[in-house]
Amino acid sequence: MNDTENAVAEGVDALTLNKDNDVTVATEATVNEEQEDIVNPWHVTSMNEAGIDYDKLIKRFGSSKIDEELITRFEKLTGKPAHHFIRRGIFFSHRDLHTILNLKEQQKPFYLYTGRGPSSESLHLGHLIPFIMTKWLQETFNVPLVIQLTDDEKTLWKDLKVDEAIQLARENAKDIVAMGFNVEKTFIFNNLTFMGQCPSMYQNIIRIQKCVTFNQVKGIFGFGDSDVIGKIGFPAAQAAPAISSTFPFLFGNKKVQCLVPCAIDQDPYFRMTRDVSPRLGYPKCALIHSSFFPALQGAKSKMSASEQNSAIFLTDTSKQIKNKINKYAFSGGRDTIEEHRALGGVPEIDVAYQLLKFFLEDDTKLEEVRIAYSKGEMLTGDLKKLAIETVAPIVEQHQAARKLVTDDILDEFMKIRPLNFSGSN
Amino acid sequence: MNDTENAVAEGVDALTLNKDNDVTVATEATVNEEQEDIVNPWHVTSMNEAGIDYDKLIKRFGSSKIDEELITRFEKLTGKPAHHFIRRGIFFSHRDLHTILNLKEQQKPFYLYTGRGPSSESLHLGHLIPFIMTKWLQETFNVPLVIQLTDDEKTLWKDLKVDEAIQLARENAKDIVAMGFNVEKTFIFNNLTFMGQCPSMYQNIIRIQKCVTFNQVKGIFGFGDSDVIGKIGFPAAQAAPAISSTFPFLFGNKKVQCLVPCAIDQDPYFRMTRDVSPRLGYPKCALIHSSFFPALQGAKSKMSASEQNSAIFLTDTSKQIKNKINKYAFSGGRDTIEEHRALGGVPEIDVAYQLLKFFLEDDTKLEEVRIAYSKGEMLTGDLKKLAIETVAPIVEQHQAARKLVTDDILDEFMKIRPLNFSGSN
Repeated sequence: MNDTENAVAEGVDALTLNKDNDVTVATEATVNEEQEDIVNPWHVTSMNEAGIDYDKLIKRFGSSKIDEELITRFEKLTGKPAHHFIRRGIFFSHRDLHTILNLKEQQKPFYLYTGRGPSSESLHLGHLIPFIMTKWLQETFNVPLVIQLTDDEKTLWKDLKVDEAIQLARENAKDIVAMGFNVEKTFIFNNLTFMGQCPSMYQNIIRIQKCVTFNQVKGIFGFGDSDVIGKIGFPAAQAAPAISSTFPFLFGNKKVQCLVPCAIDQDPYFRMTRDVSPRLGYPKCALIHSSFFPALQGAKSKMSASEQNSAIFLTDTSKQIKNKINKYAFSGGRDTIEEHRALGGVPEIDVAYQLLKFFLEDDTKLEEVRIAYSKGEMLTGDLKKLAIETVAPIVEQHQAARKLVTDDILDEFMKIRPLNFSGSN
Repeated sequence: MNDTENAVAEGVDALTLNKDNDVTVATEATVNEEQEDIVNPWHVTSMNEAGIDYDKLIKRFGSSKIDEELITRFEKLTGKPAHHFIRRGIFFSHRDLHTILNLKEQQKPFYLYTGRGPSSESLHLGHLIPFIMTKWLQETFNVPLVIQLTDDEKTLWKDLKVDEAIQLARENAKDIVAMGFNVEKTFIFNNLTFMGQCPSMYQNIIRIQKCVTFNQVKGIFGFGDSDVIGKIGFPAAQAAPAISSTFPFLFGNKKVQCLVPCAIDQDPYFRMTRDVSPRLGYPKCALIHSSFFPALQGAKSKMSASEQNSAIFLTDTSKQIKNKINKYAFSGGRDTIEEHRALGGVPEIDVAYQLLKFFLEDDTKLEEVRIAYSKGEMLTGDLKKLAIETVAPIVEQHQAARKLVTDDILDEFMKIRPLNFSGSN
């Protein structure tokens, strides 16, 4: 995690700090200055221990930073503090969030759209992030939400058959439902089924695919001549739900603005979508982008379901979580206790600290921990213990909630039906 | 029309005949020897007055000629004479037709699949050809038939909106229904609607799109980097109906062989399909290919709905048909009556004669006409008169039948439902 805002607040430059204290880190940081981070929907890697340089990414992607001014406006309009993901810069970038706030101000409607590619049966902690944010936004703005499961994408990209991908989508959807979404305001769908239930979906895909050339998807996604044609066409399937006419059963023929909370690696899809929407007579979707949830091995890569030891799964027992964090969580501590007491740890590259930043809601406590660890008063073991105590109950609670999600309950969420949408929020 | 079989039967080489009698034709024929005919789903042109060189095309495409031996087997198995389209070499090429005959022999099931791209409101005579053949095959083999209207394709390729293309598909479907298909054995669907009614369709498209690279569609269809991604993905939508699991409501989970009657310009789609099907565990579809219906201006190009004067539309009045044939139908006659009486006409390049070859069912009469015209006993005017007398009543009859096709009747054909399919024919 690049924790730029905190670093700036303290007058400390994380990169300099690394260079001063660790030669290896310094070398890698230097490499990073020459070699760009890789961020696209299929690969996220950084050469830097502190992870992706998100300020650079904002410039490269042409999005905008979620700054203090925007947060203040947000809090003023919603009448409550922004979610800690926003306050802590976990959701750090946006496109047209002001437009959404304008709609709120004018009491005009919008809807939320997020999604997930179901590539493994059990989600990990990182998968929760966009959904936690989305749920909070849904509650805060009282708006309808559509959640897409791109089982078609996973069939095309992975060694997965259609039926397996559909099954994974359902399993993942149960985890999503377990997070407590309101069934009256939430529609969950998987492409491989929904496409065959709602003609508007395919019709909008064709409209979008008519506006985008191979050259464009080559530029945006890096597709090549040896890619299968399913991959080349797929971006339109992720774009379509950002256009309200894809869901006539939700929005009738109203042209409703859409806000997409997602990890920033998904931005290429929505750059494409925002380019096409006006040509189809629809508003550009707004976005808020999260940073990546780090792998246990450190922020150079994101937590990945296909790397068993990189991830805390929502199916892990408390014991497994304890073991994984103790064994694998990359430490920003020093080589010896003496050194640590003298020099202090580096929370910016410490994965246990990052877990707390995502999941410890208490701002005061988090800041105490940060200072204590930086000063060397708190050891890596203490930090890991706190991380385990924070994360394990969240996972346990999730498991309990998920057990209650029956197929019938899931079917309710996935049923084509009107939602509680009055056309104003 | 290249009338090779007739020519061979008489020991006459059509090309030599042209060369002997007309310098211009000879020159063009020579050009054609160097420059290949263009035949793909979007362009069909020949430099030769006699039209496409179909023997060359069979070699280029790697299909097989429908020869006397195959026709004999066909007639033996069906117990009736082959349709005059087959006997006269209008359906001249095939892939795996023997496999279909084997199934017939073993009393095993298959189904028919054909289609149309709905780019204009009114069909012309040429559009009838695959449907006339298909109807005859359906009656002869008593098998189910699916008819695809590729309104998605037309949206992507033409200046047509989704809603307009759907409307055109319905209009065209009424013309198809008017040809007398049996509603108990025929399912008609348009992609832009059907995709949203039957999840198996999209699921099979994804399966197919996973097997085909951009390089492959570039090679098969000539797509380029500046083509829109909808075009690049579309071939899978035309391929899917050749796989029986696309229609679970028709075939359950049976893997049923498919026979596709189509004009030979559609073959590239099915070369691709035949490449993919075995990888999905399904049999390769069999095909029978028709030659092209010539434009009134001659066989260098096919009759086209976008060239008003090239086509006899199914909406034309008998008077319009008379005028069009008299005014535009390319004549194989000589410059003066004296010359014609002395040298005779050339039926192979005469459009009025070609119309008779397609629509005059009486073999004896047609042969009399051919001989009389070739000998100069019959003049161009006589030939045109006979063509008008043959074609105008067919069009009139079609118009009367089409008037009876209500929206309700069409909806019956387009309803998702089981057909009369016992699993054996």
